[in-house]
Amino acid sequence: MTAKNMDELVALCKRRGFIFQSSEIYGGIQGVYDFGPLGVELKNNIKKAWWEAMVYENDNIEGLDSSILTNPLVLKYSGHEDTFTDPMIDCKSCNLRFRADQVPDKCKPEDLTEPRQFNLMFKTNVGPVEDGSNYAYLRPETAQQIFINFKNVLDSTSKTVPFGIAQIGKAFRNEITPRNFIFRVREFEQMELEYFVLAGDDDKAHDSWVQKRVEWWEKQGVPIESIELYDVPSEELAHYSKKTIDIMYKFPHGVEELEGIANRTDFDLGSHSKKQDNLKIKSSVRINSHSNSKLAIQIKPEEWTVPYVIEPSAGVERAFLAILNEAYKLEQLDGGKTRTVLNLKPHLSPVKAAIIPLKKNNNDIVKKAREVKKNLQKLGLGRIIFENTGNIGKSYRKHDEIGTPACITVDFETLEDDTVTLRDRDTMSQKRLKIKNLANHLVNLIAG
Amino acid sequence: MTAKNMDELVALCKRRGFIFQSSEIYGGIQGVYDFGPLGVELKNNIKKAWWEAMVYENDNIEGLDSSILTNPLVLKYSGHEDTFTDPMIDCKSCNLRFRADQVPDKCKPEDLTEPRQFNLMFKTNVGPVEDGSNYAYLRPETAQQIFINFKNVLDSTSKTVPFGIAQIGKAFRNEITPRNFIFRVREFEQMELEYFVLAGDDDKAHDSWVQKRVEWWEKQGVPIESIELYDVPSEELAHYSKKTIDIMYKFPHGVEELEGIANRTDFDLGSHSKKQDNLKIKSSVRINSHSNSKLAIQIKPEEWTVPYVIEPSAGVERAFLAILNEAYKLEQLDGGKTRTVLNLKPHLSPVKAAIIPLKKNNNDIVKKAREVKKNLQKLGLGRIIFENTGNIGKSYRKHDEIGTPACITVDFETLEDDTVTLRDRDTMSQKRLKIKNLANHLVNLIAG
Repeated sequence: MTAKNMDELVALCKRRGFIFQSSEIYGGIQGVYDFGPLGVELKNNIKKAWWEAMVYENDNIEGLDSSILTNPLVLKYSGHEDTFTDPMIDCKSCNLRFRADQVPDKCKPEDLTEPRQFNLMFKTNVGPVEDGSNYAYLRPETAQQIFINFKNVLDSTSKTVPFGIAQIGKAFRNEITPRNFIFRVREFEQMELEYFVLAGDDDKAHDSWVQKRVEWWEKQGVPIESIELYDVPSEELAHYSKKTIDIMYKFPHGVEELEGIANRTDFDLGSHSKKQDNLKIKSSVRINSHSNSKLAIQIKPEEWTVPYVIEPSAGVERAFLAILNEAYKLEQLDGGKTRTVLNLKPHLSPVKAAIIPLKKNNNDIVKKAREVKKNLQKLGLGRIIFENTGNIGKSYRKHDEIGTPACITVDFETLEDDTVTLRDRDTMSQKRLKIKNLANHLVNLIAG
Repeated sequence: MTAKNMDELVALCKRRGFIFQSSEIYGGIQGVYDFGPLGVELKNNIKKAWWEAMVYENDNIEGLDSSILTNPLVLKYSGHEDTFTDPMIDCKSCNLRFRADQVPDKCKPEDLTEPRQFNLMFKTNVGPVEDGSNYAYLRPETAQQIFINFKNVLDSTSKTVPFGIAQIGKAFRNEITPRNFIFRVREFEQMELEYFVLAGDDDKAHDSWVQKRVEWWEKQGVPIESIELYDVPSEELAHYSKKTIDIMYKFPHGVEELEGIANRTDFDLGSHSKKQDNLKIKSSVRINSHSNSKLAIQIKPEEWTVPYVIEPSAGVERAFLAILNEAYKLEQLDGGKTRTVLNLKPHLSPVKAAIIPLKKNNNDIVKKAREVKKNLQKLGLGRIIFENTGNIGKSYRKHDEIGTPACITVDFETLEDDTVTLRDRDTMSQKRLKIKNLANHLVNLIAG
């Protein structure tokens, strides 16, 4: 049912304006993409669906939007300066560099260097002094800024554990060999929740988040059948992780991680806290001589504890790719014809409805169509398009291909009885509907 | 009516979780801020209001979400590599550097160097080779990526002039002396529209966008009385600008630019186009030997023209600050009391409604309140909060201060007749309302 291969998706994305190579007119910039008119809508809809499910539906989860530029001390104590690396190999014959597990077959073993560690963080000078003493990293993940804002959020919202902080935002990794379209890129967006619980409540919270996240993916059109849960074996776990479940998805290029749900114990808050000695931190943390904040909660008059954290962490681009792949269909129609259709869940569709005048030059019809568009736009459901091509068949094909759930045609009959033709994307069936009933129909279709 | 000074706003922002200093537990990072639980909602609501007004309400405007990492050639041909600079002065006595117009009074003239030009762009190495040959800039504005995607958007959407491309996203400037809270920062967000028109239609389009933008600000709670239109005199204009109107706002620290609306002629598309010689470009552009795309439109069989561009460009942080400043009130109440209230336009309020059970430990009341919250949340109006402090007065004060337009109290009477108390933020008046009528009331209040 899904796309045959990545090329089909890449072609659709370029043709219809979902995704372009970044800085394309100057030869691009490797592993970096721009989202076009439809891509930005789909991406925003995915982020909105995540934010609503995380922040709005949970009274004990708060949102955050922190900076990309990050004080190096944050990434020193998180461990990124030392360990956020990939093994890199040089080919002495072709003078290229590769990630150790991605050396092309054509490279002769005798031409290759031993692997050495390459740090994936982007660095940039900050301030007017350029002697290398003042720099920041572009954050390699959104998680760390959540941890360092733990106390700020607690103090300003009077929360107690269990509670969570959710964030959506860009992160940057200087991948040695970016590849597979938007799957492995250098600039991307993450949707991360850090959910803080008392030690002892962590296993149950972890199980619960795995289940909630799988249910969420299902609501976005990524069914359980396309997913595998990978219980990361202990020898593959990061030293601070007690347990990690990866949600694996059958991408066009293979089965890879869509989201990871990790039990990170008290490592993160413990690492960034001052007065670590008094906090009975269970994980192995570096001595912190810079933090000015105690990232712990008081459980008795003289006793503080560092909460454990459960982290569901998903990539927006990977979500985009999986959702697009699941929605993409090449259907055989009667008469040997085919149609391309994206049967996206309507709340994710870049365009919610297209309003099409039957005749592009008939003033009355065009005026009426504009009026319909304007009124439906006010519902706040997302983008409604006035589509004045004068060619209904072409408009239907376009909107099938970009996943618009409803096409609404305004014709001569409309001028007489205030009805329109409503065409359904998935069934291609058409029916007449009173204009005054359109709003209800769309609300049910999209938000219902 | 507005805040007395910036300190009042800064204190509110920290106390209530709108804005925190970034990387604060490690001493911060100058000119960079994080948006807390309420800040992220207000910021997202501002961006949504802009996006709806620009993209959704205009059939000839398309959205874009391009990358931050930018190929240096983009910023060579835009002119940024040469001219995106500020004059910098060193103080030989205190060893600090200042923007020439911001040298503190205590600095003795004889200790100061002559000003020299300092480029404000952040640079970072890209890819595994670190010899300085492979780098990217963090974009200093979102506009350039719009120009270089001109052809991509045209080809994938079949638009013709006049049409626009709108983008919201982060931009970065290595300010020598960031200051005035979130007014002048190193990492910020822009909301930019590039509106392409034929030469000759540019003056009218420019006038029209100035008017539309002022109207938009008014809808966000920044009234015309707080605004001055500054017609930038020709000696201050960039060499490519035919006319620029700045919307100036009375910030707590002084009257400064909130948004600029520039007529940038054919400079931008002309600068980034290949085959410039055939395009009769009117502005003075650098010869482009790298672009692979003709950024022009065909007007006759053999004739191409480079559209002019009108650019309304606003900063999200400045919008945030102006909107917050306008909404902030210290009101004198009867009995010598005062209250702090943010009378934000309801569509911008971080929290749309607070559902407050009268008794925090009464199961029936709490259950009912949770049910009300859940049903109102489904309306998709934004965040609805279940506020179980057990202290109605305290909850009212909090929600006045964070600008929640409606407080809904569930009490014993609710259990009997399904009515709740609805308190209005601005008038503080209370009335009983049937639960079944709440949805309609909120929709009218927030979206109406």
